[in-house]
Formats: sequence, C-alpha cells, structure tokens
Amino acid sequence: MEGDLALRLRVFDLNCWAIRYLSKRRQERIRLIGDMLCQEDFDLVLLQEVWSERDYNDLNVKLGGCYPFSHYFRSGVIGSGLCVFSRFPILDTLLYQYSLNGYPYMLQHGDWFCGKSVGLALAWKSVSLLPCSHQLHAEYCREKDAYLPHRLVQAWELAQFIRHTSKAADVVLLGGDLNMHPEDVGIRLLCGWTGLRDAFAEATHFEGCEDGCTLVPNNCFTDKSELLPFPLGIRIDYILYKAISSFMVKCEELKTTTGAAPGMDVPFSDHEAVMATLHIQRQGQAVGAPLTSAEPMLADVLTEARTEVGVGLRAAQQQRYSSGRMALLALLLLLLQAMAALGALAGLDAGPFPKLSFCLLAFLAIGILLLATGLHLFHTMEVKMLHSTEEQMRMVLRMLQERP
Amino acid sequence: MEGDLALRLRVFDLNCWAIRYLSKRRQERIRLIGDMLCQEDFDLVLLQEVWSERDYNDLNVKLGGCYPFSHYFRSGVIGSGLCVFSRFPILDTLLYQYSLNGYPYMLQHGDWFCGKSVGLALAWKSVSLLPCSHQLHAEYCREKDAYLPHRLVQAWELAQFIRHTSKAADVVLLGGDLNMHPEDVGIRLLCGWTGLRDAFAEATHFEGCEDGCTLVPNNCFTDKSELLPFPLGIRIDYILYKAISSFMVKCEELKTTTGAAPGMDVPFSDHEAVMATLHIQRQGQAVGAPLTSAEPMLADVLTEARTEVGVGLRAAQQQRYSSGRMALLALLLLLLQAMAALGALAGLDAGPFPKLSFCLLAFLAIGILLLATGLHLFHTMEVKMLHSTEEQMRMVLRMLQERP
Repeated sequence: MEGDLALRLRVFDLNCWAIRYLSKRRQERIRLIGDMLCQEDFDLVLLQEVWSERDYNDLNVKLGGCYPFSHYFRSGVIGSGLCVFSRFPILDTLLYQYSLNGYPYMLQHGDWFCGKSVGLALAWKSVSLLPCSHQLHAEYCREKDAYLPHRLVQAWELAQFIRHTSKAADVVLLGGDLNMHPEDVGIRLLCGWTGLRDAFAEATHFEGCEDGCTLVPNNCFTDKSELLPFPLGIRIDYILYKAISSFMVKCEELKTTTGAAPGMDVPFSDHEAVMATLHIQRQGQAVGAPLTSAEPMLADVLTEARTEVGVGLRAAQQQRYSSGRMALLALLLLLLQAMAALGALAGLDAGPFPKLSFCLLAFLAIGILLLATGLHLFHTMEVKMLHSTEEQMRMVLRMLQERP
Repeated sequence: MEGDLALRLRVFDLNCWAIRYLSKRRQERIRLIGDMLCQEDFDLVLLQEVWSERDYNDLNVKLGGCYPFSHYFRSGVIGSGLCVFSRFPILDTLLYQYSLNGYPYMLQHGDWFCGKSVGLALAWKSVSLLPCSHQLHAEYCREKDAYLPHRLVQAWELAQFIRHTSKAADVVLLGGDLNMHPEDVGIRLLCGWTGLRDAFAEATHFEGCEDGCTLVPNNCFTDKSELLPFPLGIRIDYILYKAISSFMVKCEELKTTTGAAPGMDVPFSDHEAVMATLHIQRQGQAVGAPLTSAEPMLADVLTEARTEVGVGLRAAQQQRYSSGRMALLALLLLLLQAMAALGALAGLDAGPFPKLSFCLLAFLAIGILLLATGLHLFHTMEVKMLHSTEEQMRMVLRMLQERP
C-alpha cells in the first residue's frame, strides 16, 4: 500500500454449529452459508465449528471461485473446527492448541475432544494481515462456571500467542466465538493485554440484533431456557482488531444476522454471524503500543484473572490428591487380594469367600486403579498449566507495578 | 545498541539428564552444574531435562546472584524439563507444546508424558534476544526409527514457531537437544526453513570433543553399546542462531565439555554441554531473509521430510483402523454376552457355560473395548496432526515452485 492509499476490508465471522449427526439441518445450512458467501463479497471469512472435513471440502468447492485461498486447521480427536477463506493469498499458517480445554470424562460437554485452538493465517493484500479464527471453552452454567479457570488460561494463551506472533504484521484480526460476555474478565484480559479493539464498540454504524447479541432468543435453534436471564440474548462472538506499525484501522460498519437467513425459514447457525467493514490506512508515523494508558486498569484485570486461575488451581490440586488417594486404595485392595490368593495356593484356608465374587472384586479394583491413575495424570497436567499461567500473570503484574 | 557498538554474548546449553529416582548421581551433578555456572560468566543458560521443579528451585537459589532472571517452563504430566537463566531481564515467555510426542503406551520410553515443547523467552540487553530452549522426541533405534515422523512434525512445528514469533526480534538463539544428527532431514528442514545457522559449523574457533559430538563414549554415563556404530560419538545438541533486522551475528568460539567436569570424577550429565561465544553487531542495512539462495535445496529437503511424514501417516491410519476394528469386535462380544445373559434370565437354557468364565470374559471384553477405544482416539489425533503437517509442507513446496 503506497503513500496514503486506503484499503476497505470486509470480514465475516460465524460459529457454524456443524456437528455431524447432532446439529439440526446441518447440510442445508452449510449449503446456505456457501451460497450467501458466494453472493456477498467479503475479503476474509473466519468460520468456527466446521467439525467435519467433508463440510469444509463442500464449502471449499463452492467458494473456490470467489475465495481462491483457504485453510482448514486440524487438531484434537474431532478437530479444531476452524477454517479461513480469503480473497488474498494465504502465505503461511500456524495452529496453537490451548493447553487446557475441559475434562475428557465430561463426555456430555465434549470440549476436550475438540482440540480447541487459535488458527493463524498470514494473508497479504498490500498490507500483511494476520487473521485468526478461534474458539474458547463453552460456558455451560453461568452461575457455577466450573470451566472459568480453563477459559481464562485459554484467553491468556490466546493473548500471549497474538502478542508474540503479530509483531511484524500490519493489521491483526481476530474473529471467533469467545464464549464470554463483553464485561467478563477473560475478554477484558484479552483486549487489555493485546490492545485489540472490539469492532462492535468501535463501529461508526451498527445494524443487527440489539446490543450486538449473537446468541438470541429469536433464533429457532437456540435453547430458550438458557437465555431466560438475558431477554435480548448474549454477545459472545467477536471481531477484534488492531493496527501495528504505521497503520490505522477504523471499523466503519458492523452488522449481525438476525435469526433466519434472508428469504429463508432457517438461520445459518444457532449463532448469529458478525460482519465488519474495516477501513485500513497508512499514517505518517508509527503508532506506539496503546498499553501505557490502559495499564492501571490492566493491573486490576490481571489481579482478577489471577485470583480466578488460583481458585481453579486449588480445585485441580484437590482433584489430583483425591484421584491419587483412590488409586492407592485400589492398589492396596489388589495387593491384599494377591496375598489371599497366594495363601490359598499355599494350602492355607482361604475362608468361605466365593471365587466369582473374588474375581469380580479384583476386576473392580483394577478398573478403579486404571481410572484413578488416568485421572491423577490428567489433573497433574491441569495443575501444571494453571500454575504456569498464574505465575506468568504474576510476572506481568510485577513488571507493571515496577514501571515508573 | 547505538551506532556500531558490538555485544559479546556467551551462551551455555546442556541436557541435564535430571530424572528423579532414575538418573545417576543427579543431585550431585545439579550442584556441580550450579557451581560451574556461578564461576563462569555466561549471559544466557539454556537447560533441558530439569524434570524436577525442586532441582530448578535449587539451581535458582544458587544462581540468583549471577543470573538474576530465570524461567521454568511447565507442561505435560512430568513437565517440559526446560528452563532459562539470564543476566538480562526476561520480558516475556511463551511455551509451545508439540502436537505429537510419541505414544502414551510406550511407557519404557516415556516421551509422551513429558509434554516436550519449545520455550521462548524474550530477553533484552540492548538488542532483543529470543532464546529458545527445546527438546525433540528421542531416537531409540536408528535403524528402525518408529518416531521419525513425530520428530519431523516437531521439527516442522519448531521451525514454524520460530518463523512466526521471531519477526520483531534482533537475534534468535535456539539451544537444545534435537535428538538428530547434523545430516538428518529434520535438522536440514529446521535450518533450511528458518535460516538458523549451526554454531558448530560457523565457529571460527572450536575446542572440545571431536566433530563437536555431545554424546560420547568417554562419558561414563552414556550407553556404550548404543554408540558402537559411532566410535567418536554423535552430535545431537546444538546452539543455532540467526540475526534479523539490521544485525549480524558471528560465532567466535564454540566449546563442548569432554566427559568429566574439570577436577571431578563425574560429568555434568550424560550429554556434553555446548558453549558458544557470539559476536553481535549492528550493521548499516537490513539483512534480507537468506531463504532465496537455499531454496532449491529447501525444496528437496521438504520433499524428503514430506515423504517420511507420509510414511508415518499411513502407519497411523493403519493403527487407527486396527484399534477401531478391535473395539468393534469387543463390543460385538459384549452384545452377544448380554443377549445370552438376557436369555438365561428369561428362563432359556444358557448351556453349560460356567458363571465365573462368563464374568471373566465380560470383563476382558470391557477392558479391550476401553483400551481399543482409547487407542483409536489417540491414533485419530495422530492422523490429524500428520495429515496437517504434510499438507502445510505441500503448501510451502507449491509456493516455492511457483516463485519465478
């Protein structure tokens, strides 16, 4: 981009809710999304929850003409669900999988199996763009949110990832389902520590669901009972951005879909899509990092986040201890049984204990031993990552406080 | 660093082999390493295989005076084993855990439990340094190296991580145990794709084990039988570096330890330490990426690496298929048993099958079902990551070929 030329960039973001066999009218909706993206002329499309590679391939075939560049990020058992379509060449990609993402035994939530990640693509028009698609752990119960520490670790890792990878980019774009309300500590942490700006808050012109909500009762796929405390819905999908080096970005317009797709009876997804029109312009001098002005607030946010991570750490330590104790007890039971069996073999009286119950008990003990050991290992990892995040936050806090 | 001032940087790298209960004379060696580091005046110390946090804390207490800044990287069940000590302030850290790292059921190798990673610390003197400490999956059998695809995925991820995080640094330093010989495809890939230079190959002056070997028969802790095909030893620990922006780095001197620590009967570790003296200087104009000249060779290396990853991919697909089939068979057996049990309950003749054997068979089937399902999930993840790496390599290859 030479001189004072400007670039207008249209970004589309949607959590597609495309879980095979589980999401309602999935194939029909994927077709609709593809058709709409072909008609509209976005520059960058960031999608989440495209869990099936077949759906991605279908989209890719359909969108090949208008979005010649694309990438699908693979990770975890099911996948990351993330993909990017672009009008500009994608020069390079990198996937960062969050170190914590729920519990493998919470099968009904299933986040653990997804390998939730942030996917980064380096795209090039005349400015280098760093669009990231990402999704954080879902919130299943706002009152007693057992996953808050994990989501905070993810928000922290996402922020650190962006800080470390974005240094040479001109513009950073982050689109995705953060599973956090705008006032939540995780999003304040992410924006405060990276300097990213919320397109909804910055937009000159807005059109769409009230308050920019992206999970609304109007949508026929949303669970109405979950949205009872929020009659307007909630805003958990975001487009965030910042300019680095000598560029300036302004959000000219932000739109969301509002339930059903235009002229159709079915919405694109259970989430609303977020569409931003950004105006990028080179300006004379380099812009300094806007951290300094936000620092006093950042310290408060960091302290709050660190406290929550600390709560999670203590819970994880407790679970590590309980599972370790359970494994030890099962081992003890097995040893006792082995001694009794050896005694019986040596001709000692084994008592009236029937063989069948003896075997069943042994199998039960083995089962508990394996399960408890697995849990112990898992919670050991959890403790390590929570501890590490807490320490990193403490380090940053100290650094902020030491600055004149 | 103003004007043409120069900086002399002394870097120390060692795989400490400090596994609790397993490594010989561990505590004594950790003490020795600490004493030596206090006496010598290195600027940056990159350590691997410090598996116990207590050992790190001991080192930290001892080195606090000479190396006021340090960081320990936590990950996995056991840890990453990585830590950094520095004379310069550590401003920020980031840990990237490799997506593949061996198999959980290979208990005798244990790499899976370590959460092997690359740890990055942003240090600042008058140039911004990006020292990384890292370790890749061990090679247990060179002739039939089952872990080669995993190590190549790690080398690729390491290269991508460095490319994406180093863009704003002045100098990148990478020290660690790569578990690869200098001529191996993984190290050619890493250096070719990042532009990193091998301090041993570039050093003006060298002193130490012949050919710069870091696993030598002279060391009393090494397994002599493993080194039989290599009478001089092997070189698998490296210090790699590159200058970015307008800097120039030269390796003035490279040293390795040679078996026993000076004046002692015990070496620091089963690996030899690598010590480099680097000369960093600002030069007039920015240095372009040295990729262009190496490109024809890089394409060959990428093709070779991609072939090996492809071999791993097919093996993983086969294992995924086998474990899935085994899980299905176990499920079938369980269903048959359930039908027989229901028949017996309904008063049908269950035949002369004794209760005990029936129960044992059911438990066996449940055990196999759980195990095979776990394996199937694990190999599904493995396939995903190998596939993703192969695709990324293909993308880069295409890009290289398309360039004029």
